[in-house]
Amino acid sequence: MKTVYVLNGPNLNLLGMREPAIYGSATLEDVKKLCEAACARHGLALEFRQTNHEGELVDWVHEAGLVHAKGELAAVVMNAAAYTHTSVAILDAVKGTGVPLLELHISNVHARESFRHHSYLSAAARAVMCGFGVAGYGLAIEAVAQW
Amino acid sequence: MKTVYVLNGPNLNLLGMREPAIYGSATLEDVKKLCEAACARHGLALEFRQTNHEGELVDWVHEAGLVHAKGELAAVVMNAAAYTHTSVAILDAVKGTGVPLLELHISNVHARESFRHHSYLSAAARAVMCGFGVAGYGLAIEAVAQW
Amino acid sequence: MKTVYVLNGPNLNLLGMREPAIYGSATLEDVKKLCEAACARHGLALEFRQTNHEGELVDWVHEAGLVHAKGELAAVVMNAAAYTHTSVAILDAVKGTGVPLLELHISNVHARESFRHHSYLSAAARAVMCGFGVAGYGLAIEAVAQW
Amino acid sequence: MKTVYVLNGPNLNLLGMREPAIYGSATLEDVKKLCEAACARHGLALEFRQTNHEGELVDWVHEAGLVHAKGELAAVVMNAAAYTHTSVAILDAVKGTGVPLLELHISNVHARESFRHHSYLSAAARAVMCGFGVAGYGLAIEAVAQW
Amino acid sequence: MKTVYVLNGPNLNLLGMREPAIYGSATLEDVKKLCEAACARHGLALEFRQTNHEGELVDWVHEAGLVHAKGELAAVVMNAAAYTHTSVAILDAVKGTGVPLLELHISNVHARESFRHHSYLSAAARAVMCGFGVAGYGLAIEAVAQW
Amino acid sequence: MKTVYVLNGPNLNLLGMREPAIYGSATLEDVKKLCEAACARHGLALEFRQTNHEGELVDWVHEAGLVHAKGELAAVVMNAAAYTHTSVAILDAVKGTGVPLLELHISNVHARESFRHHSYLSAAARAVMCGFGVAGYGLAIEAVAQW
Amino acid sequence: MKTVYVLNGPNLNLLGMREPAIYGSATLEDVKKLCEAACARHGLALEFRQTNHEGELVDWVHEAGLVHAKGELAAVVMNAAAYTHTSVAILDAVKGTGVPLLELHISNVHARESFRHHSYLSAAARAVMCGFGVAGYGLAIEAVAQW
Amino acid sequence: MKTVYVLNGPNLNLLGMREPAIYGSATLEDVKKLCEAACARHGLALEFRQTNHEGELVDWVHEAGLVHAKGELAAVVMNAAAYTHTSVAILDAVKGTGVPLLELHISNVHARESFRHHSYLSAAARAVMCGFGVAGYGLAIEAVAQW
Amino acid sequence: MKTVYVLNGPNLNLLGMREPAIYGSATLEDVKKLCEAACARHGLALEFRQTNHEGELVDWVHEAGLVHAKGELAAVVMNAAAYTHTSVAILDAVKGTGVPLLELHISNVHARESFRHHSYLSAAARAVMCGFGVAGYGLAIEAVAQW
Amino acid sequence: MKTVYVLNGPNLNLLGMREPAIYGSATLEDVKKLCEAACARHGLALEFRQTNHEGELVDWVHEAGLVHAKGELAAVVMNAAAYTHTSVAILDAVKGTGVPLLELHISNVHARESFRHHSYLSAAARAVMCGFGVAGYGLAIEAVAQW
Amino acid sequence: MKTVYVLNGPNLNLLGMREPAIYGSATLEDVKKLCEAACARHGLALEFRQTNHEGELVDWVHEAGLVHAKGELAAVVMNAAAYTHTSVAILDAVKGTGVPLLELHISNVHARESFRHHSYLSAAARAVMCGFGVAGYGLAIEAVAQW
Amino acid sequence: MKTVYVLNGPNLNLLGMREPAIYGSATLEDVKKLCEAACARHGLALEFRQTNHEGELVDWVHEAGLVHAKGELAAVVMNAAAYTHTSVAILDAVKGTGVPLLELHISNVHARESFRHHSYLSAAARAVMCGFGVAGYGLAIEAVAQW
Repeated sequence: MKTVYVLNGPNLNLLGMREPAIYGSATLEDVKKLCEAACARHGLALEFRQTNHEGELVDWVHEAGLVHAKGELAAVVMNAAAYTHTSVAILDAVKGTGVPLLELHISNVHARESFRHHSYLSAAARAVMCGFGVAGYGLAIEAVAQW
Repeated sequence: MKTVYVLNGPNLNLLGMREPAIYGSATLEDVKKLCEAACARHGLALEFRQTNHEGELVDWVHEAGLVHAKGELAAVVMNAAAYTHTSVAILDAVKGTGVPLLELHISNVHARESFRHHSYLSAAARAVMCGFGVAGYGLAIEAVAQW
Repeated sequence: MKTVYVLNGPNLNLLGMREPAIYGSATLEDVKKLCEAACARHGLALEFRQTNHEGELVDWVHEAGLVHAKGELAAVVMNAAAYTHTSVAILDAVKGTGVPLLELHISNVHARESFRHHSYLSAAARAVMCGFGVAGYGLAIEAVAQW
Repeated sequence: MKTVYVLNGPNLNLLGMREPAIYGSATLEDVKKLCEAACARHGLALEFRQTNHEGELVDWVHEAGLVHAKGELAAVVMNAAAYTHTSVAILDAVKGTGVPLLELHISNVHARESFRHHSYLSAAARAVMCGFGVAGYGLAIEAVAQW
Repeated sequence: MKTVYVLNGPNLNLLGMREPAIYGSATLEDVKKLCEAACARHGLALEFRQTNHEGELVDWVHEAGLVHAKGELAAVVMNAAAYTHTSVAILDAVKGTGVPLLELHISNVHARESFRHHSYLSAAARAVMCGFGVAGYGLAIEAVAQW
Repeated sequence: MKTVYVLNGPNLNLLGMREPAIYGSATLEDVKKLCEAACARHGLALEFRQTNHEGELVDWVHEAGLVHAKGELAAVVMNAAAYTHTSVAILDAVKGTGVPLLELHISNVHARESFRHHSYLSAAARAVMCGFGVAGYGLAIEAVAQW
Repeated sequence: MKTVYVLNGPNLNLLGMREPAIYGSATLEDVKKLCEAACARHGLALEFRQTNHEGELVDWVHEAGLVHAKGELAAVVMNAAAYTHTSVAILDAVKGTGVPLLELHISNVHARESFRHHSYLSAAARAVMCGFGVAGYGLAIEAVAQW
Repeated sequence: MKTVYVLNGPNLNLLGMREPAIYGSATLEDVKKLCEAACARHGLALEFRQTNHEGELVDWVHEAGLVHAKGELAAVVMNAAAYTHTSVAILDAVKGTGVPLLELHISNVHARESFRHHSYLSAAARAVMCGFGVAGYGLAIEAVAQW
Repeated sequence: MKTVYVLNGPNLNLLGMREPAIYGSATLEDVKKLCEAACARHGLALEFRQTNHEGELVDWVHEAGLVHAKGELAAVVMNAAAYTHTSVAILDAVKGTGVPLLELHISNVHARESFRHHSYLSAAARAVMCGFGVAGYGLAIEAVAQW
Repeated sequence: MKTVYVLNGPNLNLLGMREPAIYGSATLEDVKKLCEAACARHGLALEFRQTNHEGELVDWVHEAGLVHAKGELAAVVMNAAAYTHTSVAILDAVKGTGVPLLELHISNVHARESFRHHSYLSAAARAVMCGFGVAGYGLAIEAVAQW
Repeated sequence: MKTVYVLNGPNLNLLGMREPAIYGSATLEDVKKLCEAACARHGLALEFRQTNHEGELVDWVHEAGLVHAKGELAAVVMNAAAYTHTSVAILDAVKGTGVPLLELHISNVHARESFRHHSYLSAAARAVMCGFGVAGYGLAIEAVAQW
Repeated sequence: MKTVYVLNGPNLNLLGMREPAIYGSATLEDVKKLCEAACARHGLALEFRQTNHEGELVDWVHEAGLVHAKGELAAVVMNAAAYTHTSVAILDAVKGTGVPLLELHISNVHARESFRHHSYLSAAARAVMCGFGVAGYGLAIEAVAQW
């Protein structure tokens, strides 16, 4: 049984109360349940986490890298939020560990401020999706299950 | 019963023989079948087309717009291929008709040449996905079915 | 009796239903009538057309060029819409045939997205007008009549 | 009876002697007569002025703003000449008073030096026209009469 | 009695010993006392903190957001120091919680290296001040007291 | 008894009627009174002026420079409005006279159009503040009193 | 006997009447004859075409790609004219079919407007030549014969 | 006997007291005397002026243009100071009147801030000199005498 | 006996398993031993650390600053890895403490992605070296020993 | 009998051993023979040279200019190699002497590093060719023979 | 008796035959005589040279530097021609030797191609002049005589 | 016994007298001795040279390339000085010969003018070091000895 790491970056703990016109009204707890259900459906284990610290995301990618080295990682699904646009460190963590990455954004970042159009992570991602709302998490796990 | 328009832009008729390292070995006919199956699963009708002409994509979006005006459009799933990066006309067609758009790319365009990082369409899309290979078409129809 | 070519580019067939806050509620048929009346007033013949295909606009400019070569062209009034911003081919058609060009936009393009601020056509136009709504077509024909 | 303010910026007092290949041979006095005739034709009063001082254009827009506040302004037709490209102050005057602005240039500025392609005023203008020579003033007043 | 959060970013713990020509000789402890006095004068409670970690500033803004949700927050006065120029995460924290933000810098950042001229935070700030030295903290609290 | 020069640039005479959503409803006369009160509180004389002319702001800075040379200037508080972004001449006046400058804006210019993000004056300012509304004038005079 | 596809893009049907100072006085018919003679000399078959439509150039490259797949293609010699500078679709067609491409321009594009200095096609071309006038077509076929 | 117009722009009235490390200790009165002596030496009349107003420099160029039209102008020697870098209006005045222009700067502007490296005037100047201190005025008049 | 701080940034804990084609096969533990040997050779004490957190690097530079204030610091040798390119905070820490900095990279960053060509740290570094592999650490300590 | 100057710039003496994947295995001596044969075929004399010095290329263009002034120059065929991208001096030599220039590159420079996409020489060249390998030299001489 | 080095860069040996519309009809020999006369007038010795080699200009600046070290150099007057825009080496030679530099151009470089607007040398020059034709050499020596 | 080529570019012959605050007081002769000692220590032969000519550096790299082809080259240590930033020719020489390159600068170029931050050579270098003063030459030879 392989594990999916679903890693959430800064401010996603505010989900449901943060700018609902953009992010919707579901909370991060709701998202976690949605992911649990999706993983259960596809026979995957789930590590679901959130942090506001860039370094902690790096640490977690390393942890996923160890799982990957054992052949037990399905994928990392990461919504790096603001760090998407500013973090070379997370990019290097992904490249350094070689984990398969699915980059995910709740809103359509390409229709927002121009500094949100560039992602450092995309260069190391296998796939990218945005604008599907929290339902995107479910689609992501389904996509991973097909990999 | 609503209809999904799956519109494919230039060179996608080469699918399967065009740069398989990037695009995979499935043909456009395979993709059509995959879409038919997915639509059948979700009770959706399918219009599946391909063209190398920018103007024809504009025409088809207008046609979808008429379906949309009658309340019978599920969504437009568009892989505009090269026109993604150069066509303001298709953008205006989407904005002018107000059709819900899911922008799709087979490869992860953000990990390729820099001129493929910018999409005119994204500004009018509801959601964007790339890098899922031809399997992305199936995920797209599933996402549309949830809208 | 000289002829005015009034050539309309992509999505202008949507006029009246496309983003009425920007483009108003008159249809392209209304615009045609307005042009017919203006031409009648000034003793000009009218060729009024619309297409979503860049290549067809090039073809029509060539056709107008033949009329011009016979000394029977009043002017080309062109609302190239989205192709204004992306088409070198239409620019070359205008320069290659030497037709006098009046570039027209219904909305004030300079107050919209920045990619609409640049026009390839303007370099070859004799005059440019924008923001007069569909009434601009009437003013354009009046201006042409004075040339 | 409403008033049109026709405000001319720097160097337009040179009209007729300044670079006639670009600006034609009519003088500013000729333009004024042309405007008087056009206003007379449409039952409009005319304020016609020229200055080389940016601050004076700001003052005059404020004056027009007072007329506007009384509901007696038809529009401001402004050929801000060189200040078009460098003046945020005139832009702010237009936005601050809310006067309807028709921006006008005698030559086709888009076919000249690149620093003439950008206009601060256009963002606050209702309509823009250029390249019609001094005849453009007549068209402008006609357009204003239709507003 | 409302609370002012005064949040200080990286290296401000060096205040008084760090580049005194730019930052002055007062220490962060002095600044805290200055803030306490100012808050006392205006009947405000004070939370005064410093961290070198971007994620911790995000955490603290979230904490202030909870106080804000209870109607007990006067404002967040933030000197984000270096993170001003690189952190989208703190910007999102401010936008996500909706806390009223007064952005403060001790030195006049606009007269320093060009990379210090851009602030991600300013887009979400209600007001910005710089160059007042540590006395700026006192002025900031006074301004907040007037809000 | 030292003098504060409070110099206001173009369109600030419109205060209270100009875009109140951005600038508030207080008039320039109100601001003057606010400044008089603040100066009285701190034992400072006040020169309060407004002009729409860039050259006049230069002249006034020179005048303040003469006062400064006599040791009788507290500071120049300048809201150069639109000239902030376009005037090298005022910058040179400040540098040439050496007057201590407090640059002030009523609105948060960093949250507006990008051409308002750059200030020529800031390079020569001792301090900068924006977004405090007209209350900023009072804070500015208080800050000057502490210099 | 292998075939050379000589594909001409927009406005090349105007050859001989279009800006002769730049393009010379030979017509496209003359060019065709020149190519026929050159092909005859080298034992090559010729497909010589012109279109104003970007999509049609894509279609023709696909057609040449089928010939190429059968080992019967000598090369594609393409003068894509204006589409050189704006078409990612033709680039993708060349890359997707793998046809050997010789990019040709009649005039020296590098000595003209700066937007003509960039070619999307060059990245996929085997060789590029410009500025040889219509004689370049002959040289191109000779070069192809040597491949 | 021909006339030299020596026109000085903003802040040059501060000469001698303004940043002496850059501009030296001579006053504008000293410069005027230096110019009078140089003109006397070469049999030229002198108009020597200074203003802080952009519009006034435009007016004076127009005045010189009238002298030029009568064949009585030797040249305009202009130190436009800050307006060098921001004024299209003065450029247009020079081009509109056709006066021969010698652009002069006291300091070496190319060794100062980068915004001082670009001059709108240079495009219309016959010659440019900078970095010669106030002695440059003498050299300029000598150069003009040789024209 | 002075101390060398050797500080390693994000992902360097992966050394030996991360992209060995770029970084080689030595582990961070190997590097530590190499540094211990080099320090022993030159009579220097060693603080050798690694972290994935930007803020922690700031903290450690502060700690080194305290050692420096006591005259007991040889130098800080820092391989800030990804933070090299994104961290103003570490730059400020180095400037604020005044520690002598030797910036080190294992690979030749100038031959990699363009975003790795810019280093915020270099502006405050005394010396920079890259491309020497892990042997660079030894050279760095030797260089420090000579300071 | 006219002369062709074939001038080769820096590193072309390495031909055959330098990066054969890009430049092929023929040596410069081979190229010289190829040129001799081509010249013999067309009744042209040949000057064939190579240098690593920019100044020497300038000198040789001057020498060719003297031949040109006597009406005895067929053309200069120049492969300026690296100096193509950095030398204004050679550009000026070509413009100053007016020699007809055929610019040649062995590889397709447009498909290599972006700094190789710009050529100073092209602005003064009559024709440009690249990507034909060493065979391009033969085509160049044939083209020159037709001039 | 001090010496003036007048150093001329690439292509200036063509003077009189090179683009006379830009550079005039005087030859470099004429310029030398003009300089000899001017030096004689001011009691200065003259070293007048020309080279097409960047390195030789560097060598000559070093030679002038030795003269300067002996207190026998009046100045270096350099017309570096094309190397003005591309040579950091000459800039470093000037800075390294500390020779006083007067940078001179015959034509007004600011009214020519944009790549001629930037000079590496200006940053190290004491004064710069351009557009005075060959007469500029005389003015330059006169200016040097006043230093 | 292998040879190290230590190649020094323009102005390095001034070492010791050129801007000692930046480059130190050691002369090039001192550097040579330092290199001789280091080579002796590691059993390496030394070729130590300096030139102000770009072409000569190219020639010397070719010479080193011949030594390299015989397997007798340790490395090229190059301080290309100003040519670092402007020479594609030296880059091509390094790539064409395949010599192992250690790029060296005496000062920390990244803390100087921005045009010194880019090096054409780095793309072909194995390692880069700067800011170590002349001691860097010793470290370089030591590093080479370890290769």
